[in-house]
Amino acid sequence: MTRSLKLTLAFDGTDYVGWQRQSNGPSVQAAVEAAWLAVTGEDARIAGSSRTDAGVHALGMVASVDTQSRLPAKTLLRALNANLPHDIAATDVCQAFDGFHAIEHAVGKRYRYVIQDGRIPDVVARRYCWHVPQRLDDQAMRRAAQALVGRHDFASFQSSGSERKSTIRTVTDVQLERAAGPLFDALHFEIAADGFLYNMVRAIVGSLVRIGRGAHDAQWLAAALAARDRRRAGPTAPPQGLFLLRVDYPAAD
Amino acid sequence: MTRSLKLTLAFDGTDYVGWQRQSNGPSVQAAVEAAWLAVTGEDARIAGSSRTDAGVHALGMVASVDTQSRLPAKTLLRALNANLPHDIAATDVCQAFDGFHAIEHAVGKRYRYVIQDGRIPDVVARRYCWHVPQRLDDQAMRRAAQALVGRHDFASFQSSGSERKSTIRTVTDVQLERAAGPLFDALHFEIAADGFLYNMVRAIVGSLVRIGRGAHDAQWLAAALAARDRRRAGPTAPPQGLFLLRVDYPAAD
Repeated sequence: MTRSLKLTLAFDGTDYVGWQRQSNGPSVQAAVEAAWLAVTGEDARIAGSSRTDAGVHALGMVASVDTQSRLPAKTLLRALNANLPHDIAATDVCQAFDGFHAIEHAVGKRYRYVIQDGRIPDVVARRYCWHVPQRLDDQAMRRAAQALVGRHDFASFQSSGSERKSTIRTVTDVQLERAAGPLFDALHFEIAADGFLYNMVRAIVGSLVRIGRGAHDAQWLAAALAARDRRRAGPTAPPQGLFLLRVDYPAAD
Repeated sequence: MTRSLKLTLAFDGTDYVGWQRQSNGPSVQAAVEAAWLAVTGEDARIAGSSRTDAGVHALGMVASVDTQSRLPAKTLLRALNANLPHDIAATDVCQAFDGFHAIEHAVGKRYRYVIQDGRIPDVVARRYCWHVPQRLDDQAMRRAAQALVGRHDFASFQSSGSERKSTIRTVTDVQLERAAGPLFDALHFEIAADGFLYNMVRAIVGSLVRIGRGAHDAQWLAAALAARDRRRAGPTAPPQGLFLLRVDYPAAD
């Protein structure tokens, strides 16, 4: 009998080319599939909810797999963790509805981006943040970010190379807070939407940092959004500050 | 004219053999001395307040150096950071009294040790904590740790190989708090004293974790302390959870 399982995964993306198998280096997907093979004997294809780029981290990535294994979910969770490398962990395994697919059935995602804005780098946080060596105006950034909420065409915040048909997405929440870091405080930007375009969070963060630096006023972000032109927005922020926090599915799941 | 300077340093100890120059790998001291040479042209000996073991981190290490350089402290701070590797930062440079020496004049130190006590490892925190794969009884650990406060002979918590003459130290404060981590919460143990024996914090933490696991009751720590015998205490906790937070000097400094 085949069951569809939902795996929740956390990983430190520092040493990976991203989620998806690629020829140019180790992928998270390959590591998870290898652990799955060791545990169940199945050479399965495990589908991730998001591709995630090289260097991007995840605290609540979701993956799906169809399996013949009769091992209970708790046993699978423990056995997977015993077989995964130190920078990947399964935080939950549960049975989903038949045919559950982590990409197709996702209805929303939430990301965090961490910016350490101070002259001296926080050496203990450096793998997990973008160091911008000046204090940013977080009030202006917070004001600007409000323009993103709602249903918009986000073409200005999509890197080229994407095959997505529509660039319209609905952002349901944005938050910007200062939080304590190991050594210095940092800005935690969070954004939730029904879906994200390629490099969308990083392009938004690169634009917000321009505002935080005072290069543009807070209204500039709304104008960049309305232009539907990638060249009107800011640069793409580096990957190591980005965390996929969670992926949402219909309540039926 | 010679000035004595006080440098405050932060470093990620993951890739170092510790503070002190050693033949078996890169040391923080060698990296700081190389940066100093690049900035001032002086092949100086920089003295650190603590040796720190391989893999131990620091947020507020203090070092001292005598210099002929006339560069202002602010300039030295900026130039050092431009010449230090990404896992070491100078957070402050200031002039000290003549003859200031980071070891000789230290009157107190404060350490933090981070323990992630949960079944699943926090993959994003793994370089900066000890993962103990079960929930610990932090109330019992907190009760036990109170026995450490005051002037005691800490011989039970000193690794062999030390040349320190006296094993008597005065612990001025202990704290144990649960704090949020990237993925899971963690126990933050802090301890302040007028000085520490070799591996003292790690031996104390290894003993507290035994209590947290329920292998001993809270009174066991006081008995282990009173025994003045290393074999009566717990094992030495691993280095990557340990952070030197600060070093104190007389107010005159």
